[in-house]
Amino acid sequence: MTAPGAPASGEDSLIARYFKPLATDPGAFGLTDDAAVLNALGDDIVVTTDAIVEGVHFLSDDPPQTIAKKALRVNLSDLAAKGATPAGFVLTLALRKVDETKVDEAWLAAFARGLGEDTGAFNCPLLGGDTVSTPGPLMVSITAFGRVAPGKMVHRSGAKPGDHVLVTGTIGDAALGLDILRKGSVATALANDAVLRDMLVGRYRVPEPRNALASAIRAHAHAAMDVSDGLAGDLAKLCAASAVSAAIELAAIPLSKAASAALTAGAVTLSEIVSGGDDYEILCTVAPDVLEPFVQAANASGIAANRIGTIVAGKAAPKFLDTKGAELALTRTSFSHF
Amino acid sequence: MTAPGAPASGEDSLIARYFKPLATDPGAFGLTDDAAVLNALGDDIVVTTDAIVEGVHFLSDDPPQTIAKKALRVNLSDLAAKGATPAGFVLTLALRKVDETKVDEAWLAAFARGLGEDTGAFNCPLLGGDTVSTPGPLMVSITAFGRVAPGKMVHRSGAKPGDHVLVTGTIGDAALGLDILRKGSVATALANDAVLRDMLVGRYRVPEPRNALASAIRAHAHAAMDVSDGLAGDLAKLCAASAVSAAIELAAIPLSKAASAALTAGAVTLSEIVSGGDDYEILCTVAPDVLEPFVQAANASGIAANRIGTIVAGKAAPKFLDTKGAELALTRTSFSHF
Repeated sequence: MTAPGAPASGEDSLIARYFKPLATDPGAFGLTDDAAVLNALGDDIVVTTDAIVEGVHFLSDDPPQTIAKKALRVNLSDLAAKGATPAGFVLTLALRKVDETKVDEAWLAAFARGLGEDTGAFNCPLLGGDTVSTPGPLMVSITAFGRVAPGKMVHRSGAKPGDHVLVTGTIGDAALGLDILRKGSVATALANDAVLRDMLVGRYRVPEPRNALASAIRAHAHAAMDVSDGLAGDLAKLCAASAVSAAIELAAIPLSKAASAALTAGAVTLSEIVSGGDDYEILCTVAPDVLEPFVQAANASGIAANRIGTIVAGKAAPKFLDTKGAELALTRTSFSHF
Repeated sequence: MTAPGAPASGEDSLIARYFKPLATDPGAFGLTDDAAVLNALGDDIVVTTDAIVEGVHFLSDDPPQTIAKKALRVNLSDLAAKGATPAGFVLTLALRKVDETKVDEAWLAAFARGLGEDTGAFNCPLLGGDTVSTPGPLMVSITAFGRVAPGKMVHRSGAKPGDHVLVTGTIGDAALGLDILRKGSVATALANDAVLRDMLVGRYRVPEPRNALASAIRAHAHAAMDVSDGLAGDLAKLCAASAVSAAIELAAIPLSKAASAALTAGAVTLSEIVSGGDDYEILCTVAPDVLEPFVQAANASGIAANRIGTIVAGKAAPKFLDTKGAELALTRTSFSHF
């Protein structure tokens, strides 16, 4: 991604106008070179990459601002879960042309505006990128970088029997928001409550990455990951990486008022809530003696963190138990692309 | 990109089978976590990102091995031009499903095999990635990392009047190779010479990044970039970034035997050769007193580096001059996506 002087191509001119203002890090060289420089400052660089595709991770008529924010935030969420402080990102944007020579500049301007709000809010500047034309669906691929002190990245693999299992925020909202956008059963159940519907749609379109929790995770968590493909499946991955199992109390899983209403109305099942994707909350495990300090640190950052169960020995799939100890049968555990 | 234990989704299983073997760096954690760790080892981390799209940068029926190699090599080429030593990369792969649940595993296996050959050959391990499904064209986006001593990345912006301008290898071959695959005029002109045709097609499908030249570039070049969008346009970008101009001797531009044959046959113009894309050769400028040592260092690495002209003062577009001093009129200078 370059923004040279004359003679500028259309591509270079678009980059200079819309993306150069987001390239505030000196290592980005104002997007005027072929590469950026990332100074590790003595830390480890944590690298994560996530792409979002039109029709798969966002809908064609989603606002360009929210598409930009989602693309960055799904990556920021990974950095938060690993205990890393955002350092910057590179962007690959595959755009359709509106005709042989043009992109939709109004769309691009709105996209860049949304992205710019988040690069500022999360202190995560644009370092570089690539814009390509595609005949196919719009795709935004981001590789984000964070810093942690050497060796301090928090892994999936550190969970120990006896650890408490916690999640931030509420679970299932984004999947319900997608159902509403698709005019599914949740849209019908909440037909008379625009506020709840808007909240759920907002949760699908613009996740809230928990970067304010990174230092507490680094200080206290044995294992952590973000919940992107569904709580049940992602917990299974964390348990597999740690060679442990888990017992989750269904009644302890934090639900929003909207999700509770949809559940009560029978528009969604608990199984769908714990296997729905796009939560972008943090799932982590902490030793019993640090449960209290961790929850307090989270609350001090304005983030709710709730205990939902316990890590147990064994290699069985995690169990989701009701108040009588009966296990929830899951029809699927998570979203998989293939 | 994750390769956890049970319960593995289809996506996780594909990653474990095909990509985990390429994740040889300890910082990749065997692709079992949400992020990788890049240890800067006291160096600057050079970051570059380039995506290739089916139907734009490669053709639907190109072999999967060459698609994988091209995706990595276009990024390795940027690292070489910046004087950086490859350190690893992350991969985003947007794949079409062959039906509701499956990808084409034979395609994926061949893709991973090609990629694995190059991660070994260029000592550039896979650090992580993301696989997503797309209804649209196949897309491969790579972000690659290299190391340079602090502050030693070679920029576009250092060219000085009096510098010699050099390019590696030969110019124009890849654009001719694409013309052959599209059964254009070059295919007709070289209809009787399969060896030349194959060479040109190979240059389009599998560029030869000049990473062996990185240390000489770091030691000697005032400015450097790789030629990816056409020599004329990329030189104009380098000159603009350096606030200089250039006088290029058309007769000095190195052409392959195949390109010369196509030119002689009238199947392509010199203007098309100097504005064709996908060369992935290195364009650089060096002070007069280091021309000889630089060319010798290149040759010692098995890479031809040829002087093609001189950097001159001024802000005019670079001139391409014939042996009589007449300027070549360029219909366009480079490939632009928009």
